[in-house]
Amino acid sequence: MSQNPKPGFTGSPINRSDKIRMNADALAAARAHPDARFLPLMKLDPHLLDERLLWLTPEQVPDEADMLFLGIEQDAPRFAVDLSASQLSTEPLTAHQAIARISAEEAASYAGARSLMDWHARHRHCPACGTATEMRRGGWMRTCPGCGAEQFPRVDPVVIMLAEHEGQVLVGRQPRFPPQSYSALAGFIEVGESIEEAVARELHEEAGVTATDVRYVVSQPWPFPSSLMIGCFAQVTGRDIVIDEDELEAAMWVSRDEVRAALNGDGRFRTAPPYALAHTLLSRWAAEG
Amino acid sequence: MSQNPKPGFTGSPINRSDKIRMNADALAAARAHPDARFLPLMKLDPHLLDERLLWLTPEQVPDEADMLFLGIEQDAPRFAVDLSASQLSTEPLTAHQAIARISAEEAASYAGARSLMDWHARHRHCPACGTATEMRRGGWMRTCPGCGAEQFPRVDPVVIMLAEHEGQVLVGRQPRFPPQSYSALAGFIEVGESIEEAVARELHEEAGVTATDVRYVVSQPWPFPSSLMIGCFAQVTGRDIVIDEDELEAAMWVSRDEVRAALNGDGRFRTAPPYALAHTLLSRWAAEG
Repeated sequence: MSQNPKPGFTGSPINRSDKIRMNADALAAARAHPDARFLPLMKLDPHLLDERLLWLTPEQVPDEADMLFLGIEQDAPRFAVDLSASQLSTEPLTAHQAIARISAEEAASYAGARSLMDWHARHRHCPACGTATEMRRGGWMRTCPGCGAEQFPRVDPVVIMLAEHEGQVLVGRQPRFPPQSYSALAGFIEVGESIEEAVARELHEEAGVTATDVRYVVSQPWPFPSSLMIGCFAQVTGRDIVIDEDELEAAMWVSRDEVRAALNGDGRFRTAPPYALAHTLLSRWAAEG
Repeated sequence: MSQNPKPGFTGSPINRSDKIRMNADALAAARAHPDARFLPLMKLDPHLLDERLLWLTPEQVPDEADMLFLGIEQDAPRFAVDLSASQLSTEPLTAHQAIARISAEEAASYAGARSLMDWHARHRHCPACGTATEMRRGGWMRTCPGCGAEQFPRVDPVVIMLAEHEGQVLVGRQPRFPPQSYSALAGFIEVGESIEEAVARELHEEAGVTATDVRYVVSQPWPFPSSLMIGCFAQVTGRDIVIDEDELEAAMWVSRDEVRAALNGDGRFRTAPPYALAHTLLSRWAAEG
């Protein structure tokens, strides 16, 4: 077990090249570049070819398709394209199946493309006035022809944390988890609060524990649909737990040895896959002891 | 200068009490509680009474007004109410005027109320289908009667950072800043990237510097309109700067002594007010030397 495993969905080799987004001519040139490559998603899921993401050439994509500009990789423009309406002879893998098979770098590129495409699918109208909006900047903005409002892809910050007390950390399980699976507690950061306040609020709401000190550890994006996961450790004042039964069906304190066993797949509980920040947080905590 | 000044807009004494939001009966009881208090905002700006936020009693607010449930403070329910259409005999202060006069705790309560109300003002339609949406959960959700989509208040994570090299940090100025004012560089986190990746990208885009190590420091909400400011220090490889002239009109390296002078209001540059995270970041960095 590496002491500092890299968080999931980080390390994409694509440079976002924001200057190209902002310039319609540069964007058109990128689109027409012979080395341009296009990531086809079908209902947000990718295709693989020999255990790598399938990227299409310019000849393989319909001229009229909406292109999302992802950036530049080794001088070659990269786009995502929605092929949900097309028929490939193979079925796409689900996102989780694909992520388990491709490299971490490819997973990071896919995650950004997926979140961006999903945002467009669910934000085709102006939230201010209801008018149908138009895509701009290679997919990094939508504008309203009615009221002029500009919309940008949404990123939802989430705190995910391990409450810590006397050498143990708190893990919980939601009813939707696979059997025996436990993870770090988590929740969306709300308007008007800091990361540290959100950690304390969520721990109190979900488990009835009181945080006295919150320490940021690591972050990563999470493309289901577009969260920013912010991982923390929090010292709490005691072991007594009162779980919020609307959120959790169980919670328990576990030791470093138990966490190490779970990360190795042979403990009394199972936990999240390596590309989830809960896994990284548990690994970092286990490595501190 | 305190070593650990508290970040702006944190420390509200209001408990968000999410269980009340979710329960229509509890919400109605809170609304009807004789000790309930209502923060009137006019075009998002507050009123003060003797240098404190003006809160109205149940008798003072119109029955039909939309109420945003902020939570419970000392057993008393707290709401925000939009009185933009009413006439008070006094003009509200601007937000920045008010924030400079009220306590940090009151500023935190106001900030959350402002962000929440602003979100409703700009999100009255369903982004999926355009239908007019309806407020739910005391203002913490909107639902679409057309397609059923649920919308939640938006929080936009922003990285704000000091690039650090050989005992100096990089500050920049945007054309809109007051004369001689410089601040930490900042930018929105995008879909598909971590905090650390966003810091490195923004420093490279805006100043042409290369980050090798990013260290999280502190966070706070920023209610213009609803950002989560995530403050970091970043070691960079060199002093050479290439500024993005679409973002900055100048940038410069400054020493700890220069930062201390600026924070005391008598340096070669001016900087952000204490309730801005740039101020906190500069204070924390100055205190490390």
